[in-house]
Amino acid sequence: MAVGPASFPDMPVIEGLRLGTARAGIKTAGRRDLVVIEVPQGATVAGTFTRNAFCAAPVSVAREHLASCRMRGEAPRYLVVNTGNANAGTGDIGLRDARDTCAELAHLAGVAANQVLPFSTGVIGETLPMERLLAGLPEALRGLDEGAEGWAAAGEGILTTDTRPKGASVTVRLGDETVTINGISKGSGMIKPNMATMLGFVATDAAIAPSLLDELLRETVARSFNCITVDGDTSTNDACMLIATGRGARVDDEHRLAVFRDALQGLMIELAQAIVRDGEGATKFVSLQVDGAVTREEALDVAFTVAHSPLVKTALAASDANWGRILAAVGRAPVEDFDVSRVTIDLGEVRLVEHGGCAAGYTEEAGSAVMAREEIAIRIALGRGERSATVWTTDLTREYVAINADYRS
Amino acid sequence: MAVGPASFPDMPVIEGLRLGTARAGIKTAGRRDLVVIEVPQGATVAGTFTRNAFCAAPVSVAREHLASCRMRGEAPRYLVVNTGNANAGTGDIGLRDARDTCAELAHLAGVAANQVLPFSTGVIGETLPMERLLAGLPEALRGLDEGAEGWAAAGEGILTTDTRPKGASVTVRLGDETVTINGISKGSGMIKPNMATMLGFVATDAAIAPSLLDELLRETVARSFNCITVDGDTSTNDACMLIATGRGARVDDEHRLAVFRDALQGLMIELAQAIVRDGEGATKFVSLQVDGAVTREEALDVAFTVAHSPLVKTALAASDANWGRILAAVGRAPVEDFDVSRVTIDLGEVRLVEHGGCAAGYTEEAGSAVMAREEIAIRIALGRGERSATVWTTDLTREYVAINADYRS
Repeated sequence: MAVGPASFPDMPVIEGLRLGTARAGIKTAGRRDLVVIEVPQGATVAGTFTRNAFCAAPVSVAREHLASCRMRGEAPRYLVVNTGNANAGTGDIGLRDARDTCAELAHLAGVAANQVLPFSTGVIGETLPMERLLAGLPEALRGLDEGAEGWAAAGEGILTTDTRPKGASVTVRLGDETVTINGISKGSGMIKPNMATMLGFVATDAAIAPSLLDELLRETVARSFNCITVDGDTSTNDACMLIATGRGARVDDEHRLAVFRDALQGLMIELAQAIVRDGEGATKFVSLQVDGAVTREEALDVAFTVAHSPLVKTALAASDANWGRILAAVGRAPVEDFDVSRVTIDLGEVRLVEHGGCAAGYTEEAGSAVMAREEIAIRIALGRGERSATVWTTDLTREYVAINADYRS
Repeated sequence: MAVGPASFPDMPVIEGLRLGTARAGIKTAGRRDLVVIEVPQGATVAGTFTRNAFCAAPVSVAREHLASCRMRGEAPRYLVVNTGNANAGTGDIGLRDARDTCAELAHLAGVAANQVLPFSTGVIGETLPMERLLAGLPEALRGLDEGAEGWAAAGEGILTTDTRPKGASVTVRLGDETVTINGISKGSGMIKPNMATMLGFVATDAAIAPSLLDELLRETVARSFNCITVDGDTSTNDACMLIATGRGARVDDEHRLAVFRDALQGLMIELAQAIVRDGEGATKFVSLQVDGAVTREEALDVAFTVAHSPLVKTALAASDANWGRILAAVGRAPVEDFDVSRVTIDLGEVRLVEHGGCAAGYTEEAGSAVMAREEIAIRIALGRGERSATVWTTDLTREYVAINADYRS
């Protein structure tokens, strides 16, 4: 199940950026489960990672390698991703396995081990099948491809419980040049702010200074991947990487930066929303906008309290305009001195709540008509201040439970 | 579905405390949906209410009446509870209806309107069917009963999606006298700390000063009703009332207070756990104990993060010892400077996690054997300090979704 049509664009080439995959049989034989991304020399790479205290071994190693490359003024040359096994909760063995993966790929490709960043996603708590994983690396390297097929195969190769690959591409003009941004993402369950079980790999041919690339990644992730939630769980493995090959136009003035930032933000939101649309068991795609908050943090708190409410989510699944559940969720959000009589709640174009109760003129028929849609917008105005936030989420269905009760069996 | 055998004790009489019910047809014809509790003169009454900012009209009125009784040195004489309709999100009409209910009962019983406290539970956002509700009051008054049948009928009369009534009774010796505590509770979904959709009515014949009664209620609710969660949602209507008729032994010295407090705490926990055992769709009863925290607050944060994780809850439903999900939930709890290498996680008698990963000697077989049980204890030791907390929760099943997607239809 997923909301809306699947679409994976024909990705344009980003010169020097090549992607290869293999079927290593990490969890399931015959599945594309190993991805190698080759970063050309002279590129810049930025990364953001899970804040889960139990972060997975590959996250520790990727952070460490990225930092050591930065210190030496270099960039990572390879990213290696396996699915089917998260290499999380695996202690010292997990760290060794992540390092061994990097070492083997570095050996095969002729780079230093710390120029390889490892990523894993899948079941937590089982050690990697290293023999099969390492045996898959030559195949992935042989298949490195700069073109649309490379991107498409990689988009498929990073999936776990996802039902479809997620990709986005945008090309924008910077003066008389153009820059391209391509991205792929994965994630379907255990989705929540602060990098859930999601991986995002975004590459551009733009030339961007490292510190600016870091800032752009942080800013755009804050308003995309960190604003989605399927089930409120945050994984041990999440990462979003932004690669700038530097072979295209320079992002070196305010105007160019503004254009590039907008394009990147749009692409990040598209990739993040694609994860929600493919949320486990999802039948609805819900935009939750909170306005009139004192701070953006407060707006996010209210939005996520509603987005995580199982009662709101099951009402969405049932296309039931049970606005009382939305109101109850807003009311339990962590907001100080909350005057609920100023709150309004709109479902699409229909006003549900005002003056602390059901809006005058509201009819069940009008509410149900909006709830029946596949894409639903809920807007909550707090009447306290000027700040806003939007998060995206799904409904909670029997299928979500079925998927997660049966995942390992 | 519910976990463990149903049991509703034969309640002993608490002299002067009478309970009556009626079938008023508030939502469903023929269902016992109106309960009146008569409090004898000279009693003391304490109450604790939802912290949801959108609190229901009856909560506002009950708080106000309780405060005005206190100011005049009196106690409420009647509690009136309806199910089938929460009278929440109903604005000024809701407030008027709650006041009218009190006024009518006061008129019929010959007391002042502010000596009546109203309680409602059920669907949010619909106005009360006042004609039917008021028409049911004489029947409830005529049936007032001090005995076990009065308690049993009231235990049934306060239910909504509950599958069975919840009652507990305890009698303890205070010197050469005894005191009795009886209690009933309701709640099944929308259960979370800070008074979820739950109502608790507890009465004792002990004589206790008002300020001490307040303190006892606050203390014992903090470690019972506020330590349970089914789905993380907090309702607009929750309340727990503690009535001391004062006709029995006095709780007036340290020793007697300690004995009484223990008995009351035990009874409160029993009533709270009964709500979890009857959690919507529940097939498991889970005790989550967190030790080694710096503060009790921190221990509660970790416990509730795990208890609310849909991935942990679906694993419990599947009897799947997917300890990685527990570890991931612990890792995302809001704990500063969290050294996860010191954390241990035990499932029943089986150690799951130590040194940041799977415990040495752990076998899937041993984990699965514990997970197959209907009652499961999870113990998480943080290794940071001396404080602990225990919360009780359920699994998340397809039936939970079915119940909540279909509730209004």
